[in-house]
Amino acid sequence: MNEKELLGQLKTRLQEVDDLYKAGAVLGWDQSTYMPPGGSAARGRQLATLGRVAHERATDPEIGRLLDALQPWADKLSPDNDDACIIRNARRAYDRNVKVPVALVGELNSHLAVTYDAWAKARPANDFGMVREGLQKTVDLSRKLAECFAPYEHIMDPLIDMSDYGMKVSTVSVIFADLRKQLVPMVQAITAQAPADDSLLRRKYPEQKQWDFGMSVAKRIGYDIERGRQDKTHHPFCTTFSIGDVRITTRFDENNLGDGFFSTIHETGHAMYEQGVDPKYEATPLAGGASAGVHESQSRLWENLVGRSRGFWEYYFPKLQRKFGKQLKDVTLDQFYRAINKVQRSLIRVDADEVTYNLHVILRFDLEMQLLEGSLSVNDLPHVWRARYKSDLGIEPPDDKDGVLQDVHWYGGIVGGSFQGYTLGNIMSGMFYAAATQAHPEIPDQIRAGRFGALHKWLVKSIYRHGEKYTTSQLIQRITGGELTTAPYLAYLRGKYGELYDLSST
Amino acid sequence: MNEKELLGQLKTRLQEVDDLYKAGAVLGWDQSTYMPPGGSAARGRQLATLGRVAHERATDPEIGRLLDALQPWADKLSPDNDDACIIRNARRAYDRNVKVPVALVGELNSHLAVTYDAWAKARPANDFGMVREGLQKTVDLSRKLAECFAPYEHIMDPLIDMSDYGMKVSTVSVIFADLRKQLVPMVQAITAQAPADDSLLRRKYPEQKQWDFGMSVAKRIGYDIERGRQDKTHHPFCTTFSIGDVRITTRFDENNLGDGFFSTIHETGHAMYEQGVDPKYEATPLAGGASAGVHESQSRLWENLVGRSRGFWEYYFPKLQRKFGKQLKDVTLDQFYRAINKVQRSLIRVDADEVTYNLHVILRFDLEMQLLEGSLSVNDLPHVWRARYKSDLGIEPPDDKDGVLQDVHWYGGIVGGSFQGYTLGNIMSGMFYAAATQAHPEIPDQIRAGRFGALHKWLVKSIYRHGEKYTTSQLIQRITGGELTTAPYLAYLRGKYGELYDLSST
Repeated sequence: MNEKELLGQLKTRLQEVDDLYKAGAVLGWDQSTYMPPGGSAARGRQLATLGRVAHERATDPEIGRLLDALQPWADKLSPDNDDACIIRNARRAYDRNVKVPVALVGELNSHLAVTYDAWAKARPANDFGMVREGLQKTVDLSRKLAECFAPYEHIMDPLIDMSDYGMKVSTVSVIFADLRKQLVPMVQAITAQAPADDSLLRRKYPEQKQWDFGMSVAKRIGYDIERGRQDKTHHPFCTTFSIGDVRITTRFDENNLGDGFFSTIHETGHAMYEQGVDPKYEATPLAGGASAGVHESQSRLWENLVGRSRGFWEYYFPKLQRKFGKQLKDVTLDQFYRAINKVQRSLIRVDADEVTYNLHVILRFDLEMQLLEGSLSVNDLPHVWRARYKSDLGIEPPDDKDGVLQDVHWYGGIVGGSFQGYTLGNIMSGMFYAAATQAHPEIPDQIRAGRFGALHKWLVKSIYRHGEKYTTSQLIQRITGGELTTAPYLAYLRGKYGELYDLSST
Repeated sequence: MNEKELLGQLKTRLQEVDDLYKAGAVLGWDQSTYMPPGGSAARGRQLATLGRVAHERATDPEIGRLLDALQPWADKLSPDNDDACIIRNARRAYDRNVKVPVALVGELNSHLAVTYDAWAKARPANDFGMVREGLQKTVDLSRKLAECFAPYEHIMDPLIDMSDYGMKVSTVSVIFADLRKQLVPMVQAITAQAPADDSLLRRKYPEQKQWDFGMSVAKRIGYDIERGRQDKTHHPFCTTFSIGDVRITTRFDENNLGDGFFSTIHETGHAMYEQGVDPKYEATPLAGGASAGVHESQSRLWENLVGRSRGFWEYYFPKLQRKFGKQLKDVTLDQFYRAINKVQRSLIRVDADEVTYNLHVILRFDLEMQLLEGSLSVNDLPHVWRARYKSDLGIEPPDDKDGVLQDVHWYGGIVGGSFQGYTLGNIMSGMFYAAATQAHPEIPDQIRAGRFGALHKWLVKSIYRHGEKYTTSQLIQRITGGELTTAPYLAYLRGKYGELYDLSST
């Protein structure tokens, strides 16, 4: 058989695996959107079956044989060649899948189902004791999982690799420590000043009008609703069934204008990335985002760098005022802009503003690293969590409910590799937006005029269309000619918040 | 390994197959309800993959070995034993699946995809020529499919078996011929009299109010929306994801009150059947309807014998009048009752009334039988179709669009076995309703009072909870002590329409 035939066989098998995972995604979406309560037991079973069958197909030794047979041929191709990239990504996924014993996957899944249930009860009960033992076992199993990928530099590296391929503790922790060093005094300086008044966002904003306004913005910035749709869920998310069907969900609080709107724009950023992948990559290992971090860079770029910018609201605030005449008639653009960019010491990561947000993430990254290393025990975690909030954010959680129990990540998933993507995304959003405006200096003016074409086009060309073809580092290299750096992101924060607050002390 | 272990293994495999098919059902539901246009190419591929993987698992030789190993044990069980029934149904499905060569399944599926597309163009173009050759090949392939199950009494028997297990041309055709002999003069007698005025149904009825009224009835007759939901689609259907999640869809025409309402009640009948299956049968070969005919008996029982009865509207018409005050203020119960039971010579099966409906079905049954036998050629089909409409319904289709091209069945599926279930269902609806009222003579009075509990309870006990445990004939035997007969259904039609029209001549 020649390479063309082998490659054809490989692609057919990879497509089948992709189809099965995407079918699971449809079932998951339905579970969160429209499934009646009675469907839940069977749906759990059906999702487990789909996952198991997909995993079986993904680890079929025939895929390994095809990859082995194709490797010498792929080695002779340019590293930029699509087929070479497909083989490289397929090899990476296959190796990752076969290296983990099925028994460990099973043990992990059953254990996480138990800890998730325990957490769902422990959080409202504010009782860390209910999850303590389970979390200890999760740490042990997470270590075991990492061991499957030995040798490694740091035990968390293989876990980071699962969502942010190529990133390592050795680089990420240095970058995060540097970012933290800059952010802590910035938060101190800002919160020492008079706080912004965001009560205007807490007036009553009818849901349907919020929906209409959010969708009108989503469409205008580039979300193609012939290839997507929005529905309501408890937690907003973006899910991809194919390049032609990328959906978002959102939620609304009639007493919080920002919640629904910025959720919509955030998920729209994720969705535009997935919609922008070159259609020829459909159902191949190149059809997705380069990494969790790059994905987050796109949601945050649209949510924050565009959606919370003054220029954006110069165009949109008059429209928002027309939509909500009664609620906003006494509000100026400046008041609104300050309200949506209010910086405050807070306990909850998902509600945090741009300046404090990364401090929430970095402390989680550090703590999960220490848990895996064994330098922090699960017993000490709640106490260390509180101390770190005190030192970084100047505020101490009064309880574990809004402390160490607030995020689902460590209770519904493994410990390690689950948080870095958020802050890597923020850092990259600064790098990419700076590169875009450098290439197209007209972008800020266009945004002020409600035009997003130049920015969207640049993102498609530079990032979206490549899908998973390039690794995070390769993408950064291609775009900036350099490596991951916090400089543009910090410059962005300093520029924006330096206008809103006196930052001369930092 | 003992029988308990073997049975456990078999059930695990059957559950896996069921999960995969049900996953396909979720993808199909989404495709009809919420999928954006861009999703359609990938969705077709994903559905094909799920179907192929499910078929592979369903025909895994290990299932055959388990069935063989369990057969001696099952033979010693009572035929009523659940495990014996599971093994019997699993054996039937397995044999059916393995008897058809994979190549034939593939050829059939690709061919039907082509003829479906051709039909979708041919129907609006009123051009039978566009589908003639394709339909000829469908007839040939349908014969080939039937041959896989040789020996048989009649070539259509194996195809009827696929949806109405145990029914044969030899019995069905006799019953249908008898029914036709009674219906043709009844239609003639009724249509010779002054037609009912149904213009009152054509006033403007806002969609949301139609939705609310339909759902209020659906819930009251017994549809559990904690285990189901209704959405809108182009063609109404009922789909089952599990016993705890049985959904219906409907459509509305603001200028046709009956269309949406009776669709909702029809699909609700299907859904109540599936919701009523004993939960212990979940994901086994007993969790479904006994046959297409029995399923249709439930949708038609609720739609027609209940939903178009005078007693039902004695309770509901005042409520409908309150809902649509403006539209119905000048209408009496009697006028409304006559309007929803208007009998007329018509061309379109799906719009036909109770009296003419079965004539539409029986002629299709006869024609597909003749096509398979070879006594009718595809070339002659449009002409024979028109002649038969003339003789049975007294009306000749002016074109093929509303003639031989009107139903999707022969273009999106095989020829043979696709129509008998509709009329078998009507016949059985008469038998079952008669049995229910004999057991519970209070049922008609309850319905007049808007209470459906006694009927629903009897249906659950006698039919629903058994799922696929009994064959159609066994079910009829258990309920009536006899065999399939048209007498109760004809008595129902004569009773009801004898009150509305003079039938003394028939």
